[in-house]
Amino acid sequence: MRTTNPFDDDKLREECGVFGVSGTDSAAALVALGLHALQHRGQEAAGISSYDGVQFHTHRAMGHVAGNFDRDDIIRQLPGTVAAGHVRYSTTGETALRNVQPLYADLASGGFAIAHNGNISNAMRLKRDLVRRGSIFQSTSDTEVIIHLVATSSYRSLLDKFIDALRQVEGAYSLICMTPEGMIACRDPLGIRPLVMGRLGDSVIFASETVALDVVGAEFVRAVDPGELVIVQGDDIRSIRPFAPVAPRPCIFEYVYFSRPDSIAEDRSIYSVRKAIGAQLAIENPVEADLIIPVPDSGTPAAIGYAQQSGIPFELGIIRSHYVGRTFIQPGDKVRHLGVKLKHNANRALIKGKRVVLIDDSIVRGTTSLKIVEMMREAGAAEIHMRIASPPTRHSCFYGVDTPERAKLLAAKFDVSGMTDFIHADSLAFVSIDGLYKALGEARRAEIRPKYCDACFTGDYPTTLTDQDESSPVEQFSMLEERVG
Amino acid sequence: MRTTNPFDDDKLREECGVFGVSGTDSAAALVALGLHALQHRGQEAAGISSYDGVQFHTHRAMGHVAGNFDRDDIIRQLPGTVAAGHVRYSTTGETALRNVQPLYADLASGGFAIAHNGNISNAMRLKRDLVRRGSIFQSTSDTEVIIHLVATSSYRSLLDKFIDALRQVEGAYSLICMTPEGMIACRDPLGIRPLVMGRLGDSVIFASETVALDVVGAEFVRAVDPGELVIVQGDDIRSIRPFAPVAPRPCIFEYVYFSRPDSIAEDRSIYSVRKAIGAQLAIENPVEADLIIPVPDSGTPAAIGYAQQSGIPFELGIIRSHYVGRTFIQPGDKVRHLGVKLKHNANRALIKGKRVVLIDDSIVRGTTSLKIVEMMREAGAAEIHMRIASPPTRHSCFYGVDTPERAKLLAAKFDVSGMTDFIHADSLAFVSIDGLYKALGEARRAEIRPKYCDACFTGDYPTTLTDQDESSPVEQFSMLEERVG
Amino acid sequence: MRTTNPFDDDKLREECGVFGVSGTDSAAALVALGLHALQHRGQEAAGISSYDGVQFHTHRAMGHVAGNFDRDDIIRQLPGTVAAGHVRYSTTGETALRNVQPLYADLASGGFAIAHNGNISNAMRLKRDLVRRGSIFQSTSDTEVIIHLVATSSYRSLLDKFIDALRQVEGAYSLICMTPEGMIACRDPLGIRPLVMGRLGDSVIFASETVALDVVGAEFVRAVDPGELVIVQGDDIRSIRPFAPVAPRPCIFEYVYFSRPDSIAEDRSIYSVRKAIGAQLAIENPVEADLIIPVPDSGTPAAIGYAQQSGIPFELGIIRSHYVGRTFIQPGDKVRHLGVKLKHNANRALIKGKRVVLIDDSIVRGTTSLKIVEMMREAGAAEIHMRIASPPTRHSCFYGVDTPERAKLLAAKFDVSGMTDFIHADSLAFVSIDGLYKALGEARRAEIRPKYCDACFTGDYPTTLTDQDESSPVEQFSMLEERVG
Amino acid sequence: MRTTNPFDDDKLREECGVFGVSGTDSAAALVALGLHALQHRGQEAAGISSYDGVQFHTHRAMGHVAGNFDRDDIIRQLPGTVAAGHVRYSTTGETALRNVQPLYADLASGGFAIAHNGNISNAMRLKRDLVRRGSIFQSTSDTEVIIHLVATSSYRSLLDKFIDALRQVEGAYSLICMTPEGMIACRDPLGIRPLVMGRLGDSVIFASETVALDVVGAEFVRAVDPGELVIVQGDDIRSIRPFAPVAPRPCIFEYVYFSRPDSIAEDRSIYSVRKAIGAQLAIENPVEADLIIPVPDSGTPAAIGYAQQSGIPFELGIIRSHYVGRTFIQPGDKVRHLGVKLKHNANRALIKGKRVVLIDDSIVRGTTSLKIVEMMREAGAAEIHMRIASPPTRHSCFYGVDTPERAKLLAAKFDVSGMTDFIHADSLAFVSIDGLYKALGEARRAEIRPKYCDACFTGDYPTTLTDQDESSPVEQFSMLEERVG
Repeated sequence: MRTTNPFDDDKLREECGVFGVSGTDSAAALVALGLHALQHRGQEAAGISSYDGVQFHTHRAMGHVAGNFDRDDIIRQLPGTVAAGHVRYSTTGETALRNVQPLYADLASGGFAIAHNGNISNAMRLKRDLVRRGSIFQSTSDTEVIIHLVATSSYRSLLDKFIDALRQVEGAYSLICMTPEGMIACRDPLGIRPLVMGRLGDSVIFASETVALDVVGAEFVRAVDPGELVIVQGDDIRSIRPFAPVAPRPCIFEYVYFSRPDSIAEDRSIYSVRKAIGAQLAIENPVEADLIIPVPDSGTPAAIGYAQQSGIPFELGIIRSHYVGRTFIQPGDKVRHLGVKLKHNANRALIKGKRVVLIDDSIVRGTTSLKIVEMMREAGAAEIHMRIASPPTRHSCFYGVDTPERAKLLAAKFDVSGMTDFIHADSLAFVSIDGLYKALGEARRAEIRPKYCDACFTGDYPTTLTDQDESSPVEQFSMLEERVG
Repeated sequence: MRTTNPFDDDKLREECGVFGVSGTDSAAALVALGLHALQHRGQEAAGISSYDGVQFHTHRAMGHVAGNFDRDDIIRQLPGTVAAGHVRYSTTGETALRNVQPLYADLASGGFAIAHNGNISNAMRLKRDLVRRGSIFQSTSDTEVIIHLVATSSYRSLLDKFIDALRQVEGAYSLICMTPEGMIACRDPLGIRPLVMGRLGDSVIFASETVALDVVGAEFVRAVDPGELVIVQGDDIRSIRPFAPVAPRPCIFEYVYFSRPDSIAEDRSIYSVRKAIGAQLAIENPVEADLIIPVPDSGTPAAIGYAQQSGIPFELGIIRSHYVGRTFIQPGDKVRHLGVKLKHNANRALIKGKRVVLIDDSIVRGTTSLKIVEMMREAGAAEIHMRIASPPTRHSCFYGVDTPERAKLLAAKFDVSGMTDFIHADSLAFVSIDGLYKALGEARRAEIRPKYCDACFTGDYPTTLTDQDESSPVEQFSMLEERVG
Repeated sequence: MRTTNPFDDDKLREECGVFGVSGTDSAAALVALGLHALQHRGQEAAGISSYDGVQFHTHRAMGHVAGNFDRDDIIRQLPGTVAAGHVRYSTTGETALRNVQPLYADLASGGFAIAHNGNISNAMRLKRDLVRRGSIFQSTSDTEVIIHLVATSSYRSLLDKFIDALRQVEGAYSLICMTPEGMIACRDPLGIRPLVMGRLGDSVIFASETVALDVVGAEFVRAVDPGELVIVQGDDIRSIRPFAPVAPRPCIFEYVYFSRPDSIAEDRSIYSVRKAIGAQLAIENPVEADLIIPVPDSGTPAAIGYAQQSGIPFELGIIRSHYVGRTFIQPGDKVRHLGVKLKHNANRALIKGKRVVLIDDSIVRGTTSLKIVEMMREAGAAEIHMRIASPPTRHSCFYGVDTPERAKLLAAKFDVSGMTDFIHADSLAFVSIDGLYKALGEARRAEIRPKYCDACFTGDYPTTLTDQDESSPVEQFSMLEERVG
Repeated sequence: MRTTNPFDDDKLREECGVFGVSGTDSAAALVALGLHALQHRGQEAAGISSYDGVQFHTHRAMGHVAGNFDRDDIIRQLPGTVAAGHVRYSTTGETALRNVQPLYADLASGGFAIAHNGNISNAMRLKRDLVRRGSIFQSTSDTEVIIHLVATSSYRSLLDKFIDALRQVEGAYSLICMTPEGMIACRDPLGIRPLVMGRLGDSVIFASETVALDVVGAEFVRAVDPGELVIVQGDDIRSIRPFAPVAPRPCIFEYVYFSRPDSIAEDRSIYSVRKAIGAQLAIENPVEADLIIPVPDSGTPAAIGYAQQSGIPFELGIIRSHYVGRTFIQPGDKVRHLGVKLKHNANRALIKGKRVVLIDDSIVRGTTSLKIVEMMREAGAAEIHMRIASPPTRHSCFYGVDTPERAKLLAAKFDVSGMTDFIHADSLAFVSIDGLYKALGEARRAEIRPKYCDACFTGDYPTTLTDQDESSPVEQFSMLEERVG
């Protein structure tokens, strides 16, 4: 597994990013750039499909966008003025090339390619019914359910078939689809996962985050609305809203960790939200100390906010190696315990004898927090205070985020005092859930219909969880499944 | 493309070989050996599926069996006491990993794996109907049609669904299928492609040719009959014949070229049949000469037969390089014409001033025959007489053999005199169609219901050719097809 | 070429790092860890040699330590209790595996392996003489000159031969050598390149920087002195000083950019020196502004120092992608100009309408400075002031640093006003040479025998430059040289 | 290890083939073709060097010529009108890329590349002396000794240095050297290994065998004489003979097995010599039998000779697989004993109940002879008579042939009766040493100065064996040797 953030072994992971463009000669090349800018949303695999007016073309690869999709020979295999792509960190479905998106099918109406960010929470129930009626699945991805629902729908037009399919699925989905007639982008009625629209010259772009628009030089137009389908056919752009309206619940963790700091969501700079959370954290949980130290790199904006609010100097107390693009598998048993230092090393001369405040964005299992605290202790810190720029993560996510099972979440096992003991810190504090909403410009979290999906902190899931209620997903999907060696 | 026979650029190609075993601990390892013995039936790709009582496992690879399936790590990924495999030279369907067999599907009844030797001649018609009803194809292989027919059949039991499917397909098929309940081997009602059954201890084996039984040390039991399904469930072996009986028409070209000389078909040694054809050729087309020279290696048995019948000495007049496992792509334009000598070289000292008879098994396009004659001429042969151990190949095959389109067949363009001119020989002669049947123990070819499928020589096809009648296969299959880079 | 720092296309490059250990069972594994910690000193290739008491073993590879030397199978090929390794960014010699160090030779006295950080400035002259006397070179590396001088020395003992060799070479060298009798570490009389000694249990370690000691959990003992040879034979450690004493001149650029911020050199924390340079820069070149923005990542410590000194807030105005371990080669001409944003993107919401101060450690060609300024301008910055934490780089380095030829150095072509125009900034300023010495605790730069080698800023080279005076190195080395494809 | 002849596990192996050309634009492409034709002389590695008038270029690769040297990109890296190449089966020196020839060195006189067929029998003695004087070896190949002798020679001109070097070496060598002044081909005074000269238009070619001339379309001119140096400088060809004349002793095993049957040596067709040996074998050792069966492929010419002489029919009783270019490593222990059948299979229907005569060219260890006899027995042969077309192989070769140590040679352990028992045959007979000379046109083997080197049969070595007399080569060469992983 590839990893780049030094401490990302203990992070929740966004599973996917999507990027599509319609109306430019360099469609696939532009998608490659856009996916590269979204690489933080999924590092296991990537894929691009293009449509040249006659045929669909697809290339998929395990690994990063760079090294796979920055080669002229690959891009030349993806001709056409319409293209869409996907980066993936697997949620459901084993990691195999046939699960890498965009998924493609030859329907009676012509080719159909789909890229999906999110997770269908009743996928297993739907799959079971489809297989009984004779559908044959080629992947173990929940996304393939949508394709079969489209293929077997009794409606006439492709658009009606597609809406028929979406009405049967529950959960989170931001989708970019390609058909011979055009590109369709859509977002589930709750808008759990993000999706934005941009323009570059005459071409229309859809992307998971605004940073991907920036990187390709495109202009941000607006977010795709929750429950909206945007249909692009050449120069014609139509919008339809086939679902009953509900209050949206976008994912709050996009602000905490998933999105890049240079993205804009709902008119807010992610960077400034994170600084505001840090400042709120300093107000709620002050401490007398000599240095504010970010846990690199995701804790840095909150640490700057905390330092500016508290007046305690911001310093680089942990130096991370630039060369952790690939995990270094340490050879030989004797040296295996030295591992963590390969990624980051205490700035010993700075820390010795000082009272330090470590700022991180979240704690999942707590294992790396423990290692960081011990590293600071070993480097001679006088006191170590850990401050976390989100509330305790107590619940699993079923909407396209890779969370460990609940039993492994530190905050599900311990209260704050127990967590403090576990990580060996002198003190530990989290921003409150209301504090988090404050940093987002709200007065507090609304009891009824809160503005965001914050189920990972509160357990308040905005949809039914059909597959969870019926059985364990692992058991179901592995039943009689073929393993491809 | 890999090639081993020095002159095989101008041969018809058998497209597939199949091998399956039920009831042994080393099932996948045994299949690997069996496929290696059948490698001459398909060199582009190979695959093995196994079933361990719970799960199916599959490994597929482009290239030869050796180098891909002789590795312990691969075989360990294929556990179970039941396994089946396939070697492939593509007929329909582009060459991509997803077309490599065995194909697999998760049906409502459980897993289903299938390996197919032959060609479904109404596959496109059937596919079009299936797609209209919502089936999604994952390959461009005609074999996948059978799987979807099984999946969508309205019969209750898997066996009934399977028979229902086979009743809808036309053409040639020798199949080995694996289901959680057992292995099914079957052969189309005309028995166009071969399939034999053997035993090794308690285990049952199915294979395209007896040589694969020899190589794994198994005993030959009998051929699977045309129109027969043999069902193996543990120790239980059942046979059913669900089709109306018709007179069989096995492929006569298996005797001419496809099968290995050490195989036995219908109680006849392929080697002795080829010698008999050579002897018949000497009787029908004698010539005064000094040397009989086989075109290596496929012409050798017939050349020995011709030499023994005629009394003219058999000599190695063409030396083939051992190192042509991979085509040598000659670099540089200036030397490109030297190509043919890399594979085989005239034994100059032997040939100079002599009248030579070259014996080959067949002529397809005639291009390499021309090169061989010129090589002999250049080496100083006084006279060059070409004798061919089969009748002129005038028609395409639609039953699982790779034939060039008719317009490229030398015998479809010219009569024997024109062919002689084309290849620059002093004389050229073919064994007659009746002579070929004589070498097989018949008095002559029967006008009505001849004993073999000899359509490539006679144009007398034993089935309807639905897809051929409707349109060109190329056009149909490429319509809206996705290209995987 | 691999690159990690987003703007490192325009940096001087340290060419090498070395690491050796004597007296532990896991010698090669420890060297792999140490080299990983020194990866910033050379990313093109790496090598490790070990000695098991009987035989020497070597593995070399192009690319990073991770991915090449973190595999158990590789480490198992490197048995023994003594090992040394090298990371390389090529200075002299083409990039080919045979140039990757450690270099090895079978001498009459036994095996001899050598890892070299630095550059021999009379290598061509010496090589020419050696070849005339019959020596055959296997690499184009300057380091091989040392081996041939040892092999052909007329002294008796290996140590005498080695000292005889070193007395003939000019330039910079920190060396780790392995012989059957023990490990020898040494540093040239001026101590231009760094080399430190540490301890881990009973074993002795030599490394280019202290960070490598930290990472393997070793204790820092002391620097190897300029002109000192340290000889380790089992438990015995001896030190000899065979050169006439001269005032040392360690490289000042190690403080500016080469060394990792968490290393300690001559009792100074690199991080704190860089902060001090930033503070000095603020004193010398103040500016009224809203934000201090580091050019990531090498400008960050100086930016913190500048911000703390000036009271202007430190903010992340440039967001760098985590996924630039490999350069993304942008496919398609149309999108090629978008390149720079893949690596780093302006934090638009933060910058718009603000007066910003960009802090970088140095300017070499000026090309990326121009891009950064333009990116800030495009993001809406009101004013852009560039401040550089080193004096203008006006001269090439001949001591093991990859510098562009003088004509390409921006500071060799323009004065500060011209440079300001070139990069399109509103203002540009450098710390003064005396200011740099001040940050290092000196009153100012001494006219006579300054404390550091600062030739890249001043042109004051501490050695003769024999090869430079005689001819161009390119011309000499390519003469009749064999190219290995 | 790659193997192609089905039974070649038990053959002596020629270690090398060489091919050089001077005076054509496509020099390297032509060398690639020539080496491909000489592939049977060495399958482990290959290399080509070219000289473009300014620089030497070299590419070396493990494995076959095809797949490595048939790529345009490789050939383009080898520009120039002069080129030489080498195929190698390692004799002395481990198998590593740096041992692959041509070897190259930068001498004071310019570049020097050398390709060597043979073995220097005093290489270790010479190497020891050279290392003592300061020479550093980069390979473990005996050939490098020649280069260092040239480099350190005190003569003035390169030609004098080269002759000085050759006068110091003992053993067998056919060499092709390239210098900036021209190409030098030479053969040791005894002419142990072959070397021929040809012409293609204006260019001059040197090759190990005439078949390589045939394949590239060149005309055979003459053999390079034993003790002759041929120097090609542009259009100028000079010949010098710097050694005292001695009676030549070319290797007799070239006729028995090494050379291709379509080569010509000393005006004799190898194919016709082998047929003559087979006929002589039939005269000396007749047997009543039904079939003559060649052990494929090397036994075939002798089998044809035996069959023609005896009147017993020649038949293909052993069918070899075309797909043994790579050894098939049989997975799983249970099936490992099935191995031999993968390569060749008894033609059961032919053999059953028959008295068969197996013809092979030689027996080395006897292990595969045993397997073949058992395969025939198992296929139902009534009697099995083995006839060998060479005398018993009783002695090792030290002139560039890979022979097992004497203790493993079947003929060194047993007399013919014991050998017959060992291989389980009904009878076994060899052609006599005088019979072998007869087939070569001599009356008998001369006691004094026999016409060929036949040491492997007689133990009569034509040179002193310095290294053998002093110690074991294994011990010497591994002393302090570096292993490259």
